[in-house]
Amino acid sequence: MEQKLRGVNLGGWLVLEKWMAPSLFQGTPADDEYYLAYDLPEAEYQARLLIHRETFITEADFLRISAAGFNTVRIPVPYFIFGDRTPFIGCIDYLDKAFAWAKAYDLKILIDLHTAPFSQNGFDNGGLSGVVRWAQMPEEVAFELTVLERLAQRYADHEALWGIEVLNEPITDGEVWHSMNPMDRFPPRDLALAKGSAPISLDFLRTFYQDAYRRMRNYLSDDKVIVFHDGFQLHAWKEFFTQNDFHNVMLDTHQYVMMAEMAGTEQSLEAYVSFIDGLAKEIATVAQYVEVFVGEWSLFNSYAVGTDTKGGINPTQEEFSSNRSLTKSELEEVYQTLWRASITAWNQGAGHMYWTYKLSIDTINEPAWYGWDSWDASRAMAKNWIDPRF
Amino acid sequence: MEQKLRGVNLGGWLVLEKWMAPSLFQGTPADDEYYLAYDLPEAEYQARLLIHRETFITEADFLRISAAGFNTVRIPVPYFIFGDRTPFIGCIDYLDKAFAWAKAYDLKILIDLHTAPFSQNGFDNGGLSGVVRWAQMPEEVAFELTVLERLAQRYADHEALWGIEVLNEPITDGEVWHSMNPMDRFPPRDLALAKGSAPISLDFLRTFYQDAYRRMRNYLSDDKVIVFHDGFQLHAWKEFFTQNDFHNVMLDTHQYVMMAEMAGTEQSLEAYVSFIDGLAKEIATVAQYVEVFVGEWSLFNSYAVGTDTKGGINPTQEEFSSNRSLTKSELEEVYQTLWRASITAWNQGAGHMYWTYKLSIDTINEPAWYGWDSWDASRAMAKNWIDPRF
Repeated sequence: MEQKLRGVNLGGWLVLEKWMAPSLFQGTPADDEYYLAYDLPEAEYQARLLIHRETFITEADFLRISAAGFNTVRIPVPYFIFGDRTPFIGCIDYLDKAFAWAKAYDLKILIDLHTAPFSQNGFDNGGLSGVVRWAQMPEEVAFELTVLERLAQRYADHEALWGIEVLNEPITDGEVWHSMNPMDRFPPRDLALAKGSAPISLDFLRTFYQDAYRRMRNYLSDDKVIVFHDGFQLHAWKEFFTQNDFHNVMLDTHQYVMMAEMAGTEQSLEAYVSFIDGLAKEIATVAQYVEVFVGEWSLFNSYAVGTDTKGGINPTQEEFSSNRSLTKSELEEVYQTLWRASITAWNQGAGHMYWTYKLSIDTINEPAWYGWDSWDASRAMAKNWIDPRF
Repeated sequence: MEQKLRGVNLGGWLVLEKWMAPSLFQGTPADDEYYLAYDLPEAEYQARLLIHRETFITEADFLRISAAGFNTVRIPVPYFIFGDRTPFIGCIDYLDKAFAWAKAYDLKILIDLHTAPFSQNGFDNGGLSGVVRWAQMPEEVAFELTVLERLAQRYADHEALWGIEVLNEPITDGEVWHSMNPMDRFPPRDLALAKGSAPISLDFLRTFYQDAYRRMRNYLSDDKVIVFHDGFQLHAWKEFFTQNDFHNVMLDTHQYVMMAEMAGTEQSLEAYVSFIDGLAKEIATVAQYVEVFVGEWSLFNSYAVGTDTKGGINPTQEEFSSNRSLTKSELEEVYQTLWRASITAWNQGAGHMYWTYKLSIDTINEPAWYGWDSWDASRAMAKNWIDPRF
């Protein structure tokens, strides 16, 4: 791709996250995709998923995304996409439809395998909160490879396929595990199921990435990109990329202002811009040995919301109130400034993909969601906060 | 309202129509809202409706509608909105939310009571295909008045309330009944239920409208509009409006090119424009004695689709194929020309409201829907066919 990647994630569509579409979880104790399937009677689970999948993202969204100036969509998909892991319902037919929509509206697709059985990160978006056991289960590691292989085989010749990302946000050991702290941030519901959870070593990940590359490259010609997430260690991959004989691979790094806040960055526009400027230099350094892009990022930040959001973690939406100190034009200034600084930084690499395109939350009737609309590119565009063309 | 009405209908949200969101009806023999409630097990019916209502129209749509330049939304609501007609599920809480969204994004709402028990028109959009018995059932006529009264009472003091429309598209007798032909176009599923169906007389309708006016004006101050649909007889209301002592009332007329086609208009751009120019004169005539607006209209036409759509009735989507004869730029020219001609005509009166804002249909993977996207204002805007600001 000669242009920079100007992408957006279709989060919350085929991989469910409670905060992105709370009504799906209404009346259940489920906090994640895994328990939703167990908490709802089968017919209700099917009915909710049917309407969600048919309505949350449609052809019209692909049209709008293209018309707005994006050139790529990253589509998170679950490990059960092929429908072979009961009680979860497959969704490969929706990915098929998405490919036809992308072709019709001149968009490219990055398929992003976003979850793994027993989870690679323990986050809610990994499908099973507080459990990190996938990498310890050889049969599930092998299963994950078959999913990648089947995806590669199915879409290898589709002109809308830009690439496939091996695995979203595997949580690596050391500082990452301690600062991300998944077991505390996303408490497991079943302690027995979570027992033995542990971070993933870089050694394991490198081997898995190499296996995945070989399995997919059998089907994918060299014009299709194979993408590896950095495991939250942007600078750990120089040897991996320079010593392996890879063709057309890229590194995906995720950069959220709210994560910088959690790491101590001051909650002010100046501090955010300074943080982003620092990232620009880091990305430029990495770009010297591998194509790197920012596959997830967002304008969401506590300064604009008007209160410390504790890293954007507010799953219950209780005891949260914003002082809404910024005017409409001040908000525009904050978000537009962050947008420009971010795009400039990410374009030190191969480009960027916003998280996310759409949220089914109500920031008017549910004041606890005030400010969360900055996660939603479709709203951010309508509010004149972002313009994907720049 | 000093500006012209520049509105859009939120069709298919709180009143269901199969062609607008086919997945809701998936796996059932239901062709309308009534039978959907009976054909699905209760829990599945609830589950589908929950996700549809939460997802099909959201706060973000109100934001987008406002940002695009519309100033009004017309919201069709069912007679069971207050939840007092089992097995149907009420939806007044969604209308409450819509009022808060409209206020936040500077839009006005026209509440449109779109259905009546046992139907006022027998259309699929009346909720019960092929049945037209409401006007013959005094207790249901009385019930309908209580719905209007409760709506007026609930929103009387809300600054986002622009007005309330008494009843959508009651089908009147004579030529209207014969040309609309609801019993053939929307065959009843239960002949016993349909037995006795008949058109509604203008005398009945005038009395009902007067009753509705009195009941609602008790609650609504004179700055809120009370709207009457013309029953498909635009010129039948001069005495009604000049001889009654009404305050701030308006006449709603619906004008579809596809209906003109059914009445014999040639399927060409020139013929459509000529038809619309003729309507401009008619509207100007009516506007001399009552404020009149076009509360439903659409760019949809057979010429652009590339085949005779038989008045847009294609419920099964079988045996339909378009020759797709027009190029992208030719389509733009057709729709932009129709948009300008229509807006000019409708603004001879008080303005216009497009049908509709959104459709959950897939014109890419289901070729039978090709061309139906012109019904969808959100797509028509993204395709540069319409611009609500002009």
